[in-house]
Amino acid sequence: MAIEQKLSLMIPGPTPVPEKVLQALSKHPIGHRSKEFQDLVESTTKNLQWLHQTQNDVLTITGSGTAAMEAGIINTLSKGDKVICGENGKFGERWVKVAREFGLEVIKIESEWGTPLNPKEFKEVLEEDKQKEIKAVILTHSETSTGVINDLETISSYIRTHDTALSIIDCVTSLGACNVPVDEWQLDIVASGSQKGYMIPPGLSFIAMSQKAWKATEKSNLPKFYLNLKSYKKSLLSNSNPYTPAVNLVFALDEALKMMREEGLNNIFHRHNKHKLAMSNAAKALNLKLFADEKCLSPSITAIKTDEIDAEEFRKKIKNKFDILIAGGQDHLKGKIFRVGHLGYINDRDIITIISAISNILLDMGKISTQEAGEALLLASKFLKAD
Amino acid sequence: MAIEQKLSLMIPGPTPVPEKVLQALSKHPIGHRSKEFQDLVESTTKNLQWLHQTQNDVLTITGSGTAAMEAGIINTLSKGDKVICGENGKFGERWVKVAREFGLEVIKIESEWGTPLNPKEFKEVLEEDKQKEIKAVILTHSETSTGVINDLETISSYIRTHDTALSIIDCVTSLGACNVPVDEWQLDIVASGSQKGYMIPPGLSFIAMSQKAWKATEKSNLPKFYLNLKSYKKSLLSNSNPYTPAVNLVFALDEALKMMREEGLNNIFHRHNKHKLAMSNAAKALNLKLFADEKCLSPSITAIKTDEIDAEEFRKKIKNKFDILIAGGQDHLKGKIFRVGHLGYINDRDIITIISAISNILLDMGKISTQEAGEALLLASKFLKAD
Repeated sequence: MAIEQKLSLMIPGPTPVPEKVLQALSKHPIGHRSKEFQDLVESTTKNLQWLHQTQNDVLTITGSGTAAMEAGIINTLSKGDKVICGENGKFGERWVKVAREFGLEVIKIESEWGTPLNPKEFKEVLEEDKQKEIKAVILTHSETSTGVINDLETISSYIRTHDTALSIIDCVTSLGACNVPVDEWQLDIVASGSQKGYMIPPGLSFIAMSQKAWKATEKSNLPKFYLNLKSYKKSLLSNSNPYTPAVNLVFALDEALKMMREEGLNNIFHRHNKHKLAMSNAAKALNLKLFADEKCLSPSITAIKTDEIDAEEFRKKIKNKFDILIAGGQDHLKGKIFRVGHLGYINDRDIITIISAISNILLDMGKISTQEAGEALLLASKFLKAD
Repeated sequence: MAIEQKLSLMIPGPTPVPEKVLQALSKHPIGHRSKEFQDLVESTTKNLQWLHQTQNDVLTITGSGTAAMEAGIINTLSKGDKVICGENGKFGERWVKVAREFGLEVIKIESEWGTPLNPKEFKEVLEEDKQKEIKAVILTHSETSTGVINDLETISSYIRTHDTALSIIDCVTSLGACNVPVDEWQLDIVASGSQKGYMIPPGLSFIAMSQKAWKATEKSNLPKFYLNLKSYKKSLLSNSNPYTPAVNLVFALDEALKMMREEGLNNIFHRHNKHKLAMSNAAKALNLKLFADEKCLSPSITAIKTDEIDAEEFRKKIKNKFDILIAGGQDHLKGKIFRVGHLGYINDRDIITIISAISNILLDMGKISTQEAGEALLLASKFLKAD
């Protein structure tokens, strides 16, 4: 039986929150129309632009990452518009549902769960569209459900060549974990959520909007009110919000972004990369198989196949014995994989801890030798030493 | 110059948050798909039903009160539907905008800001609608912008007589401040927000849905995804959420609802009522005029006219000298009124404090005599003693 409050979160969100950020969260709220709050909006907006590597607007919305993606779609498109949706996991599937709900015509580019989207397929479909009927390409960068990272850099280069189509990208588990240079890649709309790389609890989501995306909002005819981004843009001119924002989460955001700036983008990316390498290589050393193609492992989530072991039972053992929460598989993957989240406020200790916990359960089950357990740790240690 | 962090919030939201609730807010987040979180959803849902005096569903959404009202409208109505919108303040105006954005045909029933909506006008329009073309009546119970409370009990009785029309009610600053017996009045959709009577920071909103409202969702053809209430209802069956909820705000909600249950509904309503009486009568004793018609004063907000004094200057003096934040007038009322919020975590001390602060500034300005200041305090004291 776990001791209350000694939980370790290693799911792909909510992620662990630093003490400093929790303290900021628990301050007495202030008026959201006050000068003090405007200062906070100014400061967080600047730091969000830094994190997104963009000179353009980054808006903060009270809502989940899904709300941010929906906002990106319904603010720039119109009924009947043709869009490409990349689909190789649960989140890719969700954006197809959103697009169809709003009457968009969806061209799906699919890939099996666990494998990356093929950039060439995007190239072909976009090149064939001589009439420039495709108005947007919607896809997920890091597919949280499978641990696959799609090659956004290449796909976005093809979108740019098309000239008309906007890119609407779910960067919920990539932003703040690996390089997403929004301006350099000329991404139009980038959505992310607070409970991921940001190291703060859920409740806020973020949308970076290019000039081209703003231009598209002028033509969009889909109905919206709470998620009408023009209202957010207008309010942002005076560092304000159209509707009462989650003030305390903004306190937390401000603190977390300051911590991120202190660490520096490259250090953050490097940290996530070495944790990915340590985690995935240790898993293999423990005779476990990676669910995702090894050439496209997400920096944030390692999905692990359990073959004859029931993944849900395995997860329960890790939770009951060590009070570490890892995620299971979603939909048809339930019971077949478990997913270790290693994004946000994660250090080397967290990585060797989860590896040791997994090893321990496998040892208990007689699935590995002590030699193999030791080798997994040594291997992890090698990757962790890389800095 | 105010000392940092010694702010007193007396705006109509965010309202002050109890220490216990802030502590709950700052706990480490847990997984939103965990048994522990399901238990929390179960407990908060039960307590929300208690607060709404309903046996029906009460859903929790991550978003502002505006998101909840929009959800109520877009989940139950279809393009071209005829609706009545009651409008006697800024929030009434907003629901007209939402309705029109989604292509509804709006019949406005208006009343000047500061005066209540006339229930008879609703009766007449509803009675004339022999074809039962009116699908909903949308209105604001406590108009935060003017300090007026509309006669929801009477208006809702006329809506029931119509039989077809749903009631979609903004109870953002009435729920948890005065009696809103949702089942007894047969209200169909009631929206509210966390940063008001709930005593928690902004970020969550709530929607109570009657059986009739759920039935209407089957016909509704307006597009929605994040705010599709059917998804929330489906998830609620397993005490879950369709998208990642603001976990830490739910910790806070749980704690705040427990505090409310401990105090008891009647005590909460009585407390707000005596504060309204103390505040409004003291204001009059200080030669200030109430903006709202005295027969319909909101239990949550007292709006005060300042005549030849600039209300914004007055507000600044209160803020600079005493670090009490009160609200100004919105739109055409800016500079003409100030608004004292007295909802949520407010005790008698807060009321005599704001009265003393107002008196003090008026004394400094030579607008009142010490005799009048003393009388205002005595009068307030009389109303506060009433329990």
